[in-house]
Amino acid sequence: MFKTIGIVGVGLIGGSFAKSAKKLGLCEKIVGMDSNPDYLHTAKNLGLIDDFGTLETMVPLCDFIIVAIPVNATRAVLPQILNLCTNQIVVDAGSTKAGICGSVKNHVHRANFIAAHPIAGTENSGPEAAVEGLYEGKMNIICEANLSNPDFLQKAIAFFNALQMKTLFMDAEEHDRHIAYVSHLSHISSFVLGQTVLEIEKDEKNIFNMAGSGFASTVRLAKSSPQMWVPIFQQNKEALSTALSAYIQNLQNFKNLIEQEEGEKLIELMTDVNRIRKVIG
Amino acid sequence: MFKTIGIVGVGLIGGSFAKSAKKLGLCEKIVGMDSNPDYLHTAKNLGLIDDFGTLETMVPLCDFIIVAIPVNATRAVLPQILNLCTNQIVVDAGSTKAGICGSVKNHVHRANFIAAHPIAGTENSGPEAAVEGLYEGKMNIICEANLSNPDFLQKAIAFFNALQMKTLFMDAEEHDRHIAYVSHLSHISSFVLGQTVLEIEKDEKNIFNMAGSGFASTVRLAKSSPQMWVPIFQQNKEALSTALSAYIQNLQNFKNLIEQEEGEKLIELMTDVNRIRKVIG
Repeated sequence: MFKTIGIVGVGLIGGSFAKSAKKLGLCEKIVGMDSNPDYLHTAKNLGLIDDFGTLETMVPLCDFIIVAIPVNATRAVLPQILNLCTNQIVVDAGSTKAGICGSVKNHVHRANFIAAHPIAGTENSGPEAAVEGLYEGKMNIICEANLSNPDFLQKAIAFFNALQMKTLFMDAEEHDRHIAYVSHLSHISSFVLGQTVLEIEKDEKNIFNMAGSGFASTVRLAKSSPQMWVPIFQQNKEALSTALSAYIQNLQNFKNLIEQEEGEKLIELMTDVNRIRKVIG
Repeated sequence: MFKTIGIVGVGLIGGSFAKSAKKLGLCEKIVGMDSNPDYLHTAKNLGLIDDFGTLETMVPLCDFIIVAIPVNATRAVLPQILNLCTNQIVVDAGSTKAGICGSVKNHVHRANFIAAHPIAGTENSGPEAAVEGLYEGKMNIICEANLSNPDFLQKAIAFFNALQMKTLFMDAEEHDRHIAYVSHLSHISSFVLGQTVLEIEKDEKNIFNMAGSGFASTVRLAKSSPQMWVPIFQQNKEALSTALSAYIQNLQNFKNLIEQEEGEKLIELMTDVNRIRKVIG
């Protein structure tokens, strides 16, 4: 499919793309780049990448480049990559899209870029966290598709299709507003749950002996990388602020219903929320 | 180990005890009782129980009785069961302990009762949700052990040990205060997350197409039974109110840090919360 794939950021997301591309024979060679030299050596030792270099040495060698670094770094690095592009296809994997699209809006090589958000991941990070098949059956959101070269777009979609991903096209602002609810808010609810329980544990030792699988599931995302998530929260500040206000208000209402012993109203509310079974399968 | 085990409430929790007891040969016969006749027939068809009856017909036949019904029902039914007891050992499985212990505090057969909280479950309910091995490796909290007949206590612990559960002894109020944080709060954070996303979905169609495994994990508990959980929240009102206040305050603080663009402080806070990796393994 491609001769050489470049992976900028050889962590969980980039490394998992490398694994799948190798497994499926979607390229002859993979070259990596990362600001962390340890990650590059680990990625090479793990066989995720065949070689590594700098942007200047790597970009000219590649025909397909995946940028999988924190969203603030993407905004800084993506214009530099596009500066070096001729016929390269560049996709990103960021969890916010408006800011990243804005950073290359007027770039002379804007058409080389496809703004993507593969909705996949785990709470782990780094090249050792790379998982083969991470993207299988997952959704990939592509924003501002009309600003990408149609031929490049088609080739990028063929790559994602080969990984058995489903593509959904969306406006960048719409993406950011929606993902605030179904991803960013979940991460914050989980981090703050972890924080609240760790705080109380200072006074109440051994509390974690009592934690079951429910707590583990709800707090799992609190293991995620702050370096990756803080820039996401910052770039989606407005939508996330709205989502958090709604969440806090609903929590306050739930607390009031408990305190006022409104059992029937709680049953009604929770029965309605049970509909979540149908929508997330 | 026992001749006849009685299961009051043949749902997820009671049914899973029945499955394990049968599998491990811990009794000759299991008799069930449930306020829902459909559950009884299903439980019998699934082979969870051999027979069913009323409290009056069942209790005299049993030497070990597990009460696995909503905590408000336990407070009402447990004294009735103890009324019928001679040498029966009765354990409950409720997620709150002070109220249940209080309901039989002065009962003439208080010593027949062992107040237990096996920390195990799933988001599903009913006899069809029963899982073999649900309790393997899980923690069982026993409260007010000093009020139970020591011989009965030993036999009950032998049963839980046979299921490969670990026992932890705890004061009932201490149990309720701790479990508010590591279980009840998680359920509310999850239910209210589900509520908040369902509300926004009214206006933003297809938002769930964008939900990934992170959202699914965080919202999983929102599939749980309101009939089981509302009485738990009500019986743990004070501790839960304190836990919810702390959670809401921490969320508000997190929101402020995002709005005030305090990236460094967010990184610091979230890095500290990453310690949760160590405490929940």
